[in-house]
Amino acid sequence: MTLKSSQIQTIAFDADDTLWRNEDIFIHAQDEFINLLLSYHDEAYIRSHLGEVQINNLEHFGYGIKGFTLSMIETAIELTEGRISGSEIHEIIQLAKCMLASPVELLPNIEQVLSQLKGQFRLLVITKGDLLDQESKLARSGVADYFDAIEIVSDKAAEAYQQILQRHKFSAENFLMVGNSLKSDILPVLDIGAQALHIPYHSTWDHEKVTDETLLRYPQLTTLNDISELLDWLNLSPLENKKAV
Amino acid sequence: MTLKSSQIQTIAFDADDTLWRNEDIFIHAQDEFINLLLSYHDEAYIRSHLGEVQINNLEHFGYGIKGFTLSMIETAIELTEGRISGSEIHEIIQLAKCMLASPVELLPNIEQVLSQLKGQFRLLVITKGDLLDQESKLARSGVADYFDAIEIVSDKAAEAYQQILQRHKFSAENFLMVGNSLKSDILPVLDIGAQALHIPYHSTWDHEKVTDETLLRYPQLTTLNDISELLDWLNLSPLENKKAV
Repeated sequence: MTLKSSQIQTIAFDADDTLWRNEDIFIHAQDEFINLLLSYHDEAYIRSHLGEVQINNLEHFGYGIKGFTLSMIETAIELTEGRISGSEIHEIIQLAKCMLASPVELLPNIEQVLSQLKGQFRLLVITKGDLLDQESKLARSGVADYFDAIEIVSDKAAEAYQQILQRHKFSAENFLMVGNSLKSDILPVLDIGAQALHIPYHSTWDHEKVTDETLLRYPQLTTLNDISELLDWLNLSPLENKKAV
Repeated sequence: MTLKSSQIQTIAFDADDTLWRNEDIFIHAQDEFINLLLSYHDEAYIRSHLGEVQINNLEHFGYGIKGFTLSMIETAIELTEGRISGSEIHEIIQLAKCMLASPVELLPNIEQVLSQLKGQFRLLVITKGDLLDQESKLARSGVADYFDAIEIVSDKAAEAYQQILQRHKFSAENFLMVGNSLKSDILPVLDIGAQALHIPYHSTWDHEKVTDETLLRYPQLTTLNDISELLDWLNLSPLENKKAV
């Protein structure tokens, strides 16, 4: 057993694209949105303008489906110079309601791994986004009972992790974060002297990407292919019926 | 000193319309919205339709400015049968950004009362709405440092209060909630056997109103005119430079 993993007492998981699929819902909605505007502009232009509006609006609206929807509406109006019809904008609002009601699809091996960790570690969820939406997804996920605490934050900077550790009286050296976003789940956690394991998801929102230059500053970065490898990292017995990812 | 107030160890405050003005921002935005649609319908009809859409959307969007804005857009499209123009909808989005950037105006005597309570009681904020917006208002309010903990919840039902008490290991008999909404701040708190003081605000959103019949079930309901009366209720010395409300 390595020294690093033997110290761990608390394991916190990111939710979107770590416990369950999420980015796919945004990609699908974005595709529908692009279809709506294809008669006005080409795909690449719509996509890049939406990306810009979304980033500019983060400070006003934060992360989550409601802010994304307001950004889609704003983009649609700008790209059509106001010619977009009310019924087309209505479709965008319906898209938001569909996104919010999307079934929560757990990623492979999540429940088996959580059930093996339960009782041996304090388990947390640390996620950002809209409060009601994240609570609703957690309730629908069927895995809420594995967790000792749920932390929904507006942004995952180092200070947010620092505050969570202080509030729960955890020390950084006993804390492990597991997530798919280098920018939100991994680097800020390494920055405060805690440990973090990166499990990449097949697609990453541009805004969550980090440069290779930044990564060079984190030689300790550890990447797993799948949540089930966390058991090995913790020196626990492997899953018996592991599903292919 | 009454028995009731002598037991109190923790005082939790609602934020919107208890610590600072909020409903006025919604009322002003709603007036602007109505102006936008006056050429299509009369005021009473627009107001009542917006109210309906808003209540129906609460389960999707929750409380807060972003959900309210999506409801305004949906209402505008429905009431104009899709004839509303893109630039008019753009005005609604700008309205949202103005609402989010509104200055945080503390209610009279708030800071003086908090400064007198600080150190004698554990002080909390318990508020609902959008996470980022509530955090931002608290940061801009200038009174964040008076509080030992901030709880932002998606809904203020009895279970939400129960969970907060459990998480902090507070017992109900030592807990006092202070707020302007009977439905969200007072009745659910009395339901779990804790204490609550109602400080009405000059206007209340219809959705937060309760019937007289419901109120009959709460003979213990106590109402204050102003936050400074809390000091008297707690048997502390009154404010020296009390401002008129």
